Amino acid sequence: MNPSNLSTPLLTRLGISVPVIQAPMAGTSTPALAAAVSNAGGLGSLGMGATTVEGARAMIRETRALTSKPFNVNLFVHVPATADAEREARWLAYLAPEFARFGAEPPAALREIYKSSVDDDAMLAMLVEERPAVVSFHFGLPKPHIVKGLHDAGIVLLASATSLDEAMQIERAGIDAIVAQGIEAGGHRGVFDPRQPDEGLGTLALVRVLVRHTHLPVIAAGGIMDGAGIAAVLALGAQAAQLGTAFVASPESAADAAYRAVIANPAVRTTLITSISGRPARGVDNRLAELGRAPERPPFPDYPIAYDAGKALHAAAKAQGNYDYAPHWAGQAVRLSRAMPAAELVATLMREVAQAGS
Amino acid sequence: MNPSNLSTPLLTRLGISVPVIQAPMAGTSTPALAAAVSNAGGLGSLGMGATTVEGARAMIRETRALTSKPFNVNLFVHVPATADAEREARWLAYLAPEFARFGAEPPAALREIYKSSVDDDAMLAMLVEERPAVVSFHFGLPKPHIVKGLHDAGIVLLASATSLDEAMQIERAGIDAIVAQGIEAGGHRGVFDPRQPDEGLGTLALVRVLVRHTHLPVIAAGGIMDGAGIAAVLALGAQAAQLGTAFVASPESAADAAYRAVIANPAVRTTLITSISGRPARGVDNRLAELGRAPERPPFPDYPIAYDAGKALHAAAKAQGNYDYAPHWAGQAVRLSRAMPAAELVATLMREVAQAGS
Repeated sequence: MNPSNLSTPLLTRLGISVPVIQAPMAGTSTPALAAAVSNAGGLGSLGMGATTVEGARAMIRETRALTSKPFNVNLFVHVPATADAEREARWLAYLAPEFARFGAEPPAALREIYKSSVDDDAMLAMLVEERPAVVSFHFGLPKPHIVKGLHDAGIVLLASATSLDEAMQIERAGIDAIVAQGIEAGGHRGVFDPRQPDEGLGTLALVRVLVRHTHLPVIAAGGIMDGAGIAAVLALGAQAAQLGTAFVASPESAADAAYRAVIANPAVRTTLITSISGRPARGVDNRLAELGRAPERPPFPDYPIAYDAGKALHAAAKAQGNYDYAPHWAGQAVRLSRAMPAAELVATLMREVAQAGS
Repeated sequence: MNPSNLSTPLLTRLGISVPVIQAPMAGTSTPALAAAVSNAGGLGSLGMGATTVEGARAMIRETRALTSKPFNVNLFVHVPATADAEREARWLAYLAPEFARFGAEPPAALREIYKSSVDDDAMLAMLVEERPAVVSFHFGLPKPHIVKGLHDAGIVLLASATSLDEAMQIERAGIDAIVAQGIEAGGHRGVFDPRQPDEGLGTLALVRVLVRHTHLPVIAAGGIMDGAGIAAVLALGAQAAQLGTAFVASPESAADAAYRAVIANPAVRTTLITSISGRPARGVDNRLAELGRAPERPPFPDYPIAYDAGKALHAAAKAQGNYDYAPHWAGQAVRLSRAMPAAELVATLMREVAQAGS
């Protein structure tokens, strides 16, 4: 594949020169990572799903200090959680023996630890002031006035879809491009309504169906770890590839040593999806995932209320040096991970794209 | 992608000129379909999973009368079923109200309707006599003397893998190439042991991991419906693409009018995996699939004992013009189906490959 042919209308719109988007990965992405990817010609992303408005502003400013290039700010726009004291109490009772293993008590109650940006006027106002080049949405779509406000500020908008139905909603909402997130992808699935059956479309099928049956540019995500993967999704008609797991091992990410060790371990082959956070997410199998997939578990509290419990349990375990409860999100092709600085990874990817299929 | 670059060592080995393998699809493939694909330069396949030795011989001879080109004979090599009268009786009791809807009785008992070829010396002897160019295995690997006997007869051997672990078993068994069957694929998943957890690897992730971590040529299967899909898997390093659903709508297939109507219906978007046959298989959602995914269903009998019940139920319904119990196997990208003669489809695919990514 000739790299001089890689420019697409979407890349022009995004103001980037290589078809690589670093996935937002709330909690793992950093301003340093996003800036490194953007400086290398791709689109770096900041995951704001676990951040306040002022925290998000600080991250944007920190990134801007490191790059003059466009970058992407990702928001979680899930339906806000419905608290359910009985469901949450059952969940905590279920986890109590795990806390006890570390001499800890479960929290007395669970909180909605992250605010949804679905209708967040303070987040909108901050973004209109700061004007990142790109804003992306995960878990659904925001209210129409948020779309309009960001568009009026000249910001390009992306949204994740896991199905044709979600993609068509994205199209109707006036979003500029679709992130087609296949079942291979690590981290949280962008499904709009996790109570509905999930067809679990693979990246190859999803990308091709969306390219053929929507009118928007498609960005492929899920299972892409190298230039061959990027060349493959470009052949499917995607205009760019979004890579998450591939960047976790970069020194610029916020991944801790335990997460890096799991990602680098060739014996780790199995990832799976659980709703341990309250929403389906793919990660490496460990004791946390086992609690999420146990047939006898009680119903999950809503996202992100369930995540509050998981994070408390991980903290209790980590305090005793146990990392078996960490949310080690990773995609199905984690075995192809390579630890290298983000700029070097982007350059390597582009060399590989040029060689793919030749 | 330049079509003159499409020749690969695997194509040379298989004696074919275009990187398209028609998936075997027991019950849907026909000698006419296999011969049309082979005559068009690809590799046609016959699915023998539901056929006796003499039936298989007849199909091979019929195909040979229609083409002098290489074709593939696919065998099911599952662990033979273990009968369990109590489990089977519970299953029939569960289905009884469905039979009653059509004024029918469930069968008094269920049978192992297809013999596994895992250790079938009569099938081996017939294949050594008939010498098809290629034999492929699904659901596992045959006994070593079957591999040796076929190899000694000069037959090229393929086997399906849904995971790296299965692929490594295939490599150790001395098979010549791996069919990497991603989660997108329609029909029966080739998983060796359906009692083990299934990681459900998407085609993109699976193909790339197998290309990188095995030494055998890889054939990609699952979600590939057009030239863009073929170009994509070639970019991943696959040496050929296997397409099943794409050929169901060909006039040469054995699909009945109801199956063709479902495949062609743009409103049909959802496929899902159930074990209604006793093994996981992807098809279009209907009443049969609903029975397989109902939370209150009893445990499935072993494959293919459970399938005997499903087929009897379909027959009872079909006798009254109801096709809602048919095993309408289809892959995730069924929406991209096009009804055209097999030779025309192969020619179309190759034109599209030449255009992909340009």
